[in-house]
Amino acid sequence: MSTELRIDANRLAARIEALGAVGAIPGGGVCRLALTDEDRAGRDLVQGWMRELGLAVSIDAIGNVVGVRLGIEPGPPVMAGSHIDTVRTGGRFDGNLGVLAGLEVIQALNDAKVVTRRPLAVAFFTNEEGARFSPDMMGSLAYVGGLPLENALATVGIDGESVGDCLKKIGYQGPAPCGQPQVHAYVELHVEQGPVLDLEGITIGAVEGVQGISWTEFTVLGLSNHAGTTPMRLRHDAGYVACAIAHEAREIARSLGGDQVATVGAINLSPNLVNVIANRAVFTVDLRNTGEGVLQQAERRLHAFAGEIAAAEGVTLSHRVLARFEPVSFDPAVVALVEATARRLGHSVRRLPSGAGHDAQMLARVCPAGMIFVPSVGGISHNVKEFTAASDLEAGANVLLHTLLALAN
Amino acid sequence: MSTELRIDANRLAARIEALGAVGAIPGGGVCRLALTDEDRAGRDLVQGWMRELGLAVSIDAIGNVVGVRLGIEPGPPVMAGSHIDTVRTGGRFDGNLGVLAGLEVIQALNDAKVVTRRPLAVAFFTNEEGARFSPDMMGSLAYVGGLPLENALATVGIDGESVGDCLKKIGYQGPAPCGQPQVHAYVELHVEQGPVLDLEGITIGAVEGVQGISWTEFTVLGLSNHAGTTPMRLRHDAGYVACAIAHEAREIARSLGGDQVATVGAINLSPNLVNVIANRAVFTVDLRNTGEGVLQQAERRLHAFAGEIAAAEGVTLSHRVLARFEPVSFDPAVVALVEATARRLGHSVRRLPSGAGHDAQMLARVCPAGMIFVPSVGGISHNVKEFTAASDLEAGANVLLHTLLALAN
Repeated sequence: MSTELRIDANRLAARIEALGAVGAIPGGGVCRLALTDEDRAGRDLVQGWMRELGLAVSIDAIGNVVGVRLGIEPGPPVMAGSHIDTVRTGGRFDGNLGVLAGLEVIQALNDAKVVTRRPLAVAFFTNEEGARFSPDMMGSLAYVGGLPLENALATVGIDGESVGDCLKKIGYQGPAPCGQPQVHAYVELHVEQGPVLDLEGITIGAVEGVQGISWTEFTVLGLSNHAGTTPMRLRHDAGYVACAIAHEAREIARSLGGDQVATVGAINLSPNLVNVIANRAVFTVDLRNTGEGVLQQAERRLHAFAGEIAAAEGVTLSHRVLARFEPVSFDPAVVALVEATARRLGHSVRRLPSGAGHDAQMLARVCPAGMIFVPSVGGISHNVKEFTAASDLEAGANVLLHTLLALAN
Repeated sequence: MSTELRIDANRLAARIEALGAVGAIPGGGVCRLALTDEDRAGRDLVQGWMRELGLAVSIDAIGNVVGVRLGIEPGPPVMAGSHIDTVRTGGRFDGNLGVLAGLEVIQALNDAKVVTRRPLAVAFFTNEEGARFSPDMMGSLAYVGGLPLENALATVGIDGESVGDCLKKIGYQGPAPCGQPQVHAYVELHVEQGPVLDLEGITIGAVEGVQGISWTEFTVLGLSNHAGTTPMRLRHDAGYVACAIAHEAREIARSLGGDQVATVGAINLSPNLVNVIANRAVFTVDLRNTGEGVLQQAERRLHAFAGEIAAAEGVTLSHRVLARFEPVSFDPAVVALVEATARRLGHSVRRLPSGAGHDAQMLARVCPAGMIFVPSVGGISHNVKEFTAASDLEAGANVLLHTLLALAN
């Protein structure tokens, strides 16, 4: 194994900058919601790079894009991957880093004329963020057979358009069978998106697993009425019930403690006027925990409270699950390999869980999978201020390089 | 005094139906937000009726429209009035009834060839609802000199357009001096918009005064971050702070009791996504009470709580007052006249306060003023389901007729 081999940090930085210019928004951030024109432009750019590097590119029916580099032997490739879609106010590293570092690994191997025993692949999966279409991690979930293709394509987004229509519109509904090629092992480099590595001054995170995720959308139907003339006891205020549940979600997270987090990020009231009691409130609750048991406890408490407050206010409450994933543990051998590789390359490293969902958790259903984290300054993510130091990007890409080499040889 | 004289209920109903067809929305409601094309169409219709009835119509710089019928003697008229703008999901009676009943009174007097000693006037005032531009009751407030004209015209609405520009666009910035003619006395017939008369089976309300109104818009600035990776203790969640304050507003109303009401009708989060902690929340709080002291107590408690929760969450809180009116007492002689007139015409009557703001409270600053309420079925208002029985509309218009006659003779 050539531990002398290193990626070119400037070349990686240049690709991050070029991709970050597509859908750029003020403050240094990016808005490339899945399957928009901006996403298409980003896809075109990355796909072009794949072809320049000599990869055999295939696109499947849900728009996942895989570029394969032949090995000495045939068979399932060792894959690096992530996503290039962003949230509305995203940064330039989230997702993009894993894909572009994968390409940089390929280019470093090309330059060094290193051919691995197994093939290598670099992939980006459709709609990881879930900011336009639910569930998130849609492309990788479909790739591993966890979501029927027709359901995925029929999914209607926040703007009323379906995944299938948008894929056709941007020209990314490809002919490759979804789930091909099969994957020998999967490694995803990603920014932590949390504060742990940055606070502790550690360069590399060997990710042991991913928090379970529970997304619920609640709809409250009350009665619109005059804000001045309707006594409090006669109200059926959908907005109040939404706020009370949001308030309780925080209380549930506080009292459960540990890793439990709870977020009400979206609230929409109707008619949303200062002097009219809302007759309709639609809002989301995002609950996450590394332990499935506690996560279920949080869900039970939330629904119990929601039912009680809705009954007390005389409103109708309904909900739908936007996404639900149990906590995932990564392959112990891959976790150990990432940790050992980081150490051997001279980087500080710690094991940690991921607070965010990632495509790697889907790939873990079908092959040994793991993740490499690099620090997010201030833990800031899903924000234009998202930032990772150049030296950390370089360290992460080199750990990716040598982890892939070890898995492919 | 001719107590035999009566209005024509069918003619009144026909005008209510015709005006209700302008900006009609599904379910029998109306959307004629102030100074929109729909408002213009409604104004044109009512102004046409004024001219058909022989009234001398004047339009002032803020778009208030007054039609005057000469009396035997010159001097300030006795005015009936209200508004014809609606909220986004309004009914067809709120405001419109007072104006159209005023026209029906004129027509009944015309038909009976009755000329009063003092002139009579029917007026509709601009932007009573405040659903597009703040403050509400803008036209009548300007009419009585409580709001400088240039400030009113510069007010920018929820859609970014100014009152002045919209007035010009719809052709309702008139040449009449704002505040002319001076008014001898003012009587406004209106649906109660609350449940009291309907619940008690009483036909006429003699309105003693209007609740004080306090509208505040809060803006919370936090930090957008990933909903999964950001531990609860490190969050600066603008959405949570908004919901906590909304939750507390209800608690304040509950604990103060009596007439105190509190409503959070509008909430807007940014970026408003399921998996991103909101960095910005803008929301409104509507507080009302018949007692100024208790209303101030509610405001103090709200601001104290808001300051504490913002500090605890590490977010920035600012607010602006959208509207603030002290409780108003109507002229005791007018209240007694309304009550006596209703009794004399054979209607059940009770005194009660108004929970909503009305143009009458502005006119009360410059002349003896009062209001006549008729029941709102179920207390429903600011809703397409707003409804008042035809017999109650007729009773209210007849009480208006004879109250105006008494004041004008």
